[in-house]
Amino acid sequence: MNPEPLVYLNGRFTPASQAHLAIYDAGIVLGATVTEMTRTFRHRLWRLDDHLARLYRALRYTRMEIGLSPQELAAVSHELVKRNAALLPHPEDELGLIHFVTAGEFPTYAGSAGGGARTTPTVCAHTFVMPWELWAEKMRTGIHLVTPSIRHVPPQCYDPKMKYRSRMHYFLADQEARLVDPSAAALLLDLDGNLTETSGANFLMVERGTIVSPPERNILPGISRATVIELAARLGIPFAERDLQVFNAVNADEAFLSTTPYCLMPVARLNGIPIGGGVPGPIFRRLLDAWSEEVGLDIGAQIEQGALRRTVRH
Amino acid sequence: MNPEPLVYLNGRFTPASQAHLAIYDAGIVLGATVTEMTRTFRHRLWRLDDHLARLYRALRYTRMEIGLSPQELAAVSHELVKRNAALLPHPEDELGLIHFVTAGEFPTYAGSAGGGARTTPTVCAHTFVMPWELWAEKMRTGIHLVTPSIRHVPPQCYDPKMKYRSRMHYFLADQEARLVDPSAAALLLDLDGNLTETSGANFLMVERGTIVSPPERNILPGISRATVIELAARLGIPFAERDLQVFNAVNADEAFLSTTPYCLMPVARLNGIPIGGGVPGPIFRRLLDAWSEEVGLDIGAQIEQGALRRTVRH
Amino acid sequence: MNPEPLVYLNGRFTPASQAHLAIYDAGIVLGATVTEMTRTFRHRLWRLDDHLARLYRALRYTRMEIGLSPQELAAVSHELVKRNAALLPHPEDELGLIHFVTAGEFPTYAGSAGGGARTTPTVCAHTFVMPWELWAEKMRTGIHLVTPSIRHVPPQCYDPKMKYRSRMHYFLADQEARLVDPSAAALLLDLDGNLTETSGANFLMVERGTIVSPPERNILPGISRATVIELAARLGIPFAERDLQVFNAVNADEAFLSTTPYCLMPVARLNGIPIGGGVPGPIFRRLLDAWSEEVGLDIGAQIEQGALRRTVRH
Amino acid sequence: MNPEPLVYLNGRFTPASQAHLAIYDAGIVLGATVTEMTRTFRHRLWRLDDHLARLYRALRYTRMEIGLSPQELAAVSHELVKRNAALLPHPEDELGLIHFVTAGEFPTYAGSAGGGARTTPTVCAHTFVMPWELWAEKMRTGIHLVTPSIRHVPPQCYDPKMKYRSRMHYFLADQEARLVDPSAAALLLDLDGNLTETSGANFLMVERGTIVSPPERNILPGISRATVIELAARLGIPFAERDLQVFNAVNADEAFLSTTPYCLMPVARLNGIPIGGGVPGPIFRRLLDAWSEEVGLDIGAQIEQGALRRTVRH
Amino acid sequence: MNPEPLVYLNGRFTPASQAHLAIYDAGIVLGATVTEMTRTFRHRLWRLDDHLARLYRALRYTRMEIGLSPQELAAVSHELVKRNAALLPHPEDELGLIHFVTAGEFPTYAGSAGGGARTTPTVCAHTFVMPWELWAEKMRTGIHLVTPSIRHVPPQCYDPKMKYRSRMHYFLADQEARLVDPSAAALLLDLDGNLTETSGANFLMVERGTIVSPPERNILPGISRATVIELAARLGIPFAERDLQVFNAVNADEAFLSTTPYCLMPVARLNGIPIGGGVPGPIFRRLLDAWSEEVGLDIGAQIEQGALRRTVRH
Amino acid sequence: MNPEPLVYLNGRFTPASQAHLAIYDAGIVLGATVTEMTRTFRHRLWRLDDHLARLYRALRYTRMEIGLSPQELAAVSHELVKRNAALLPHPEDELGLIHFVTAGEFPTYAGSAGGGARTTPTVCAHTFVMPWELWAEKMRTGIHLVTPSIRHVPPQCYDPKMKYRSRMHYFLADQEARLVDPSAAALLLDLDGNLTETSGANFLMVERGTIVSPPERNILPGISRATVIELAARLGIPFAERDLQVFNAVNADEAFLSTTPYCLMPVARLNGIPIGGGVPGPIFRRLLDAWSEEVGLDIGAQIEQGALRRTVRH
Repeated sequence: MNPEPLVYLNGRFTPASQAHLAIYDAGIVLGATVTEMTRTFRHRLWRLDDHLARLYRALRYTRMEIGLSPQELAAVSHELVKRNAALLPHPEDELGLIHFVTAGEFPTYAGSAGGGARTTPTVCAHTFVMPWELWAEKMRTGIHLVTPSIRHVPPQCYDPKMKYRSRMHYFLADQEARLVDPSAAALLLDLDGNLTETSGANFLMVERGTIVSPPERNILPGISRATVIELAARLGIPFAERDLQVFNAVNADEAFLSTTPYCLMPVARLNGIPIGGGVPGPIFRRLLDAWSEEVGLDIGAQIEQGALRRTVRH
Repeated sequence: MNPEPLVYLNGRFTPASQAHLAIYDAGIVLGATVTEMTRTFRHRLWRLDDHLARLYRALRYTRMEIGLSPQELAAVSHELVKRNAALLPHPEDELGLIHFVTAGEFPTYAGSAGGGARTTPTVCAHTFVMPWELWAEKMRTGIHLVTPSIRHVPPQCYDPKMKYRSRMHYFLADQEARLVDPSAAALLLDLDGNLTETSGANFLMVERGTIVSPPERNILPGISRATVIELAARLGIPFAERDLQVFNAVNADEAFLSTTPYCLMPVARLNGIPIGGGVPGPIFRRLLDAWSEEVGLDIGAQIEQGALRRTVRH
Repeated sequence: MNPEPLVYLNGRFTPASQAHLAIYDAGIVLGATVTEMTRTFRHRLWRLDDHLARLYRALRYTRMEIGLSPQELAAVSHELVKRNAALLPHPEDELGLIHFVTAGEFPTYAGSAGGGARTTPTVCAHTFVMPWELWAEKMRTGIHLVTPSIRHVPPQCYDPKMKYRSRMHYFLADQEARLVDPSAAALLLDLDGNLTETSGANFLMVERGTIVSPPERNILPGISRATVIELAARLGIPFAERDLQVFNAVNADEAFLSTTPYCLMPVARLNGIPIGGGVPGPIFRRLLDAWSEEVGLDIGAQIEQGALRRTVRH
Repeated sequence: MNPEPLVYLNGRFTPASQAHLAIYDAGIVLGATVTEMTRTFRHRLWRLDDHLARLYRALRYTRMEIGLSPQELAAVSHELVKRNAALLPHPEDELGLIHFVTAGEFPTYAGSAGGGARTTPTVCAHTFVMPWELWAEKMRTGIHLVTPSIRHVPPQCYDPKMKYRSRMHYFLADQEARLVDPSAAALLLDLDGNLTETSGANFLMVERGTIVSPPERNILPGISRATVIELAARLGIPFAERDLQVFNAVNADEAFLSTTPYCLMPVARLNGIPIGGGVPGPIFRRLLDAWSEEVGLDIGAQIEQGALRRTVRH
Repeated sequence: MNPEPLVYLNGRFTPASQAHLAIYDAGIVLGATVTEMTRTFRHRLWRLDDHLARLYRALRYTRMEIGLSPQELAAVSHELVKRNAALLPHPEDELGLIHFVTAGEFPTYAGSAGGGARTTPTVCAHTFVMPWELWAEKMRTGIHLVTPSIRHVPPQCYDPKMKYRSRMHYFLADQEARLVDPSAAALLLDLDGNLTETSGANFLMVERGTIVSPPERNILPGISRATVIELAARLGIPFAERDLQVFNAVNADEAFLSTTPYCLMPVARLNGIPIGGGVPGPIFRRLLDAWSEEVGLDIGAQIEQGALRRTVRH
Repeated sequence: MNPEPLVYLNGRFTPASQAHLAIYDAGIVLGATVTEMTRTFRHRLWRLDDHLARLYRALRYTRMEIGLSPQELAAVSHELVKRNAALLPHPEDELGLIHFVTAGEFPTYAGSAGGGARTTPTVCAHTFVMPWELWAEKMRTGIHLVTPSIRHVPPQCYDPKMKYRSRMHYFLADQEARLVDPSAAALLLDLDGNLTETSGANFLMVERGTIVSPPERNILPGISRATVIELAARLGIPFAERDLQVFNAVNADEAFLSTTPYCLMPVARLNGIPIGGGVPGPIFRRLLDAWSEEVGLDIGAQIEQGALRRTVRH
């Protein structure tokens, strides 16, 4: 009897404790990795097809062939989640599902270990338990964003519309943000000083009743962001894309992040300047309510109660 | 009895076949990895101190603390090389030594495997056998460089003076270069169209008797490049740094790459245009001779004969 | 009896063999030339007024006064085409009509020939027979586009919304593209890495049913592109302008070029990556059909048969 | 007896009145032309080898093969000048010699004239009589430079280190400058706002006794500028290259242009602001004296008297 | 009895002749000042709320707290205008109302005067009589705009959506424009060469029946511009925002400025090139008529007659 | 008997309490102000001529004519300092001397006060007592610099080589820096991510024994920085200019600021990362010692004791 989650790695389901990467995998040597993150609602993967479609766009751009159709990878994903969900600590917990593909083992370095060079991509899918405790307080009080001096990598270097893992700039940017406030996250500017995104979420703001977003040019076109656009259309809330600067954001009526794991999170401050009239704002509430309805559970309550559960446990 | 090379990983020497990274190591999740490559001459590490000094500059910039002094890491390195050199297939082979440091395991994902989050950096050192067969022909005929449309990441995103592994742009750039010529390598331009470096080497050219290099602003300040500067000074060959464009390179008297594994390699063409009067050029020869003298072996012959040995064997 | 086509040059119709430019014409000395290309369908000029309006916008921007009203230049154009069409090798051939205006003779150099400096612009109109044989195969298989390292000249140097002949960057860019594939054409990026246009055509792509184009900011606002916009409106196909990058294009459902001589041409690959599900795509077909209906002949068949005719002849 | 100067065109010496370019020459169609200008002192070409070396660097960059060695082209040049100098209106006049090479006839358009496409470059050399009258007054009073809003084309589009004829930006920039002052010339800024050059000359200034120039990155490396560097070295005047802005120039001690036809010209004002303490400045004088000595005639007097001669004649 | 206008300064109404700023006020020391300008129609402030809302957006961005609510500042403003309007030279004159807020007295310098450092912002409101005579002629003949080489400060330095007084670039740009024409004003380009605004007004143009404006990204979102947008909507004239270049403007059907003091002014020329078919254009007329109707007086006539009145007086 | 310091304002010496600027002075309305700061050592102005020369360079660039020669302004300055030094609270205190010139009163606004428009520049000189207490602690512990997201204004907007007062970007940048640490100052990056300067000082660092500075292109060429260069030359310490990035600074051996009021200040940290091996560094010490010797007093002790004196007093 094995209580350990499984990992899908290069064609096989493996116990997590035995799923490793070689130290000369291209994912480590080059950071030449594309990735996706999907989550479950009630233990079912949400919008997996959209996530996989985005993954395959990244594979096409990076010229990596994985030998699996989207349908095959979807089947693997559902199987993996089904198995690992059975191990969740609590029935109201949920899983995050990670896919990543690297360019495979780096032959020169691999050679020293005596093995033959494998030149096909490394394909991995693994899950993690939603860490409610990381988000619960920020869902109530809003997150503090900071624009660091580190800038987002421009599309002519590698394109942010692909979800990739050469994320040194995110790593450095978040370090700068935490100098201002240990709980802050970086909101990166592009090379022209336009707002882009955080290391883990899209940025959205409300201006005179319209939800406004940086254009898709230099951000990840988030599936959660797409959900916001669809929910807004349904709720009759206008949506627009436009290059935005810090000036716009600090004068917004409200601002929030959208991302797969926690769906939406209100933004309380940018560079220490409070945004709008306190969090959460009315548009945020309407969107989160509509989203909750869509997925059949109260997203905010799930986070709140999940976090409480763990706090108690510890 | 163990014929397998060892790997230094997080404080321990481990047989290579047992040295892996967790799939949620930050090196894989973020590409937040700094690295070095040193090589041996006659099985002794060459300029290890310079390589480690550069590694520690990268650690300072990325705020990673590894809990090892440069002296301690040097001792580990010498020990590792000593052990693995004993396993070399031929006494005239040499080792490459890789150091890399990642930001450690990514706690959120790690949690799903039930383990506690380790927040200290992952520190690894491993070796590989110099792949002479990859270089021998290009040492004779010169390499073909191509300027791709993909541009180098600018220092305000993350600084190329640090040796890092968020190298998606290199990966994409080399793909573009190989469209022109399967044996070509990308010579990346910066955002202003200046020449920078290839994915694995510094670019140097000769103009009216002077060795000219792109400035250190947006390239890795290579240890081999530093060796070129020192040898040139000794040989009385002037050296200068200046922003260079394709026009300069195609009109150079000669051009070559410098890098740790093969030291120097002549450049035959840029974007299909032959450079100078055939390879290798006279300055290249003088530098390689001086370097060979410095390290007590004929660098070109070592590559040539090493490659021949392997061809024969296969 | 003169079987030779005529050329309109500075107010007179001249046999082609006697129509030259002085070696010190500003068109040669400075490349300070604005131009247009119109074509016939069934020997009648198509959308000549639109072409001339664009020419006069370029004249206004460059401050050149040609002493001819658009109506007068139109009359000249129709007359020239009428005369030269009579000489076409086959009744189903068509003419291309070139207009160009240079800043006139460059007085300093002209002086050496003893003539007085003419400071009025040089105005020329001439025709050529549509070279069907150049396009037929690409109409079937699609063209291969390549993004070179050479970038498009930005509007603050001289504006691409003017059709001009200072085209050194096109010349160099196409050379780079042909390194990848001798039949490829360059798709130039702007200084920020956005897609612009080829040296002879606008680039258009289809994304989720919408035709998407780079914005008019830094491309020639093509008359053929305008035709696409009109035809799309009539066919109920949405059209949008947006900054596009290589990532968008390689993930498009289909892509094609629009230009005066061959109207539309499918794009098969970008940087070696196949676009969509094979050429021609469904939107391309619908547009070409509608265009053919508009001009009263089958555009694709005309090219196909015209090319076949010439192949047979040779 | 033929008093007409000759032109070298595609292998033949032709009377100037019969030397034309086809209207579909690539020089006209694309502006894809590289060029040189050399002048005589006492009817002998000065530094022809340097000019031809620069021409061949441009040919290499543009991948044009002209089938003539530099030595052959030099012989043609000397012959042409010898013949045309005999026709000079006055023995103290001098010749300018132009070389230009275009990509040859543009086959598609050429086809319409019935001729076969010639794909070899067009090679031309022609002369003109030095127009002293254009420079005499400015040599005394200094020229007025103006920084227009039109910017210089950056090297990543096409490289200014090549002397080319896709000069639409020069044409537009000089128009803007003449709005300020009909006798002014444009001093173009690069995209970052640094001073570059005028449409016909290099810009040099004096700061605390040192001659300072924009760096060679985005200017033509003028032969006259090289002469200034050599003369300055001989005279013990320091020379330096540095990115310069308008602020530097208006605060310079003196400023001047260097170019082949008139060698040196003092700059009186930039954007209406007087530079230094009146023209010509002391360094200018020393340089012009040294240059005059070098070439064995008084350069300033030659211009002055030549202009006077023509004024009298007219 | 006091015929002198009042000034509101730091909480008090003061006679104008006694309202000064300390020489070490941050407004003078740093130019760290935000400002607004409102005007009266028939002695009533027009759209004051919009102006104050914009002022408070600037205060939030600059982190200045003035201790007055918008309502309180509005009350002060109405009071000030009521008092100063009573002193107007003629009943048909109008007032301009300036608000400005500086960062307060600069403590280090203030110390030398012996006073304690005041760290609260300086808040001032003052009025001026509309200078009709400055505008009357340009309303008839149109203004001449010139694009100078000086560029607009980009939002990543400080944001033009805030009305501020660090306007050195405006000062320098207008100097350059006046070199071309003493009555011209600068139309600044942004760093990419896009049209932005003049030092005192928004730029708008008409293209095929649509009013087109530079996007709000790097211009002040003018209240008068907003009025134009509203009037255009009412009149059924389309309005669009798009990056525009000089090429667009010289080929516009008409162009005009919008700004608080004179509402609208036709643009006659850009860089000497006439725009459209003479001023004022038809859209300009319709907008000015609608605006006049909105405010209950003939705006053009008020300027014309006001100017005439003063000319007569002088 | 008047214990109040004097101010020189527009030709007159005025008691400080009566020296104001009109609220419509261009210094306030436009920030169109150029300025200088000089200090005394032992009550004598130090390098006044250098400061005035820099002021006059700024006046030339901004086309402001003040009607005073540098000699006359120097005489005024010495007189002012002589008078105000007599009022210093303690004989070991020193004065800072400010000069500023604005474009004069802004005529439109001035009109409302009934006065005639004065179009000549406003010229002011005033003094302040050196605030030792602001610097003493940082001289011991070093200052913390932070690179904010706000970038330095580039020279093509207005040139940083001029000392000006359109300093909104400094104001905003320092606000961002103080979010990280209330005692931190901003070290602004230019638009390419290069280090420039703080709002009040030049940045210098030591790398392998050489003092390295950002190039003069986009910083104020500080008189104190010039002093460092001269002292370094005398001490045999090499000095170089080079574009520097954050990576260079955090890996420097030491770093310090140079500026008129406190001469030199060690930099302890950049973005929280300690620089070198603790402050003050050895080069800093040598420079400060040499400077102290030059001016005949112990600069560090003067600050330390001055601060102590004031602390005691309060």
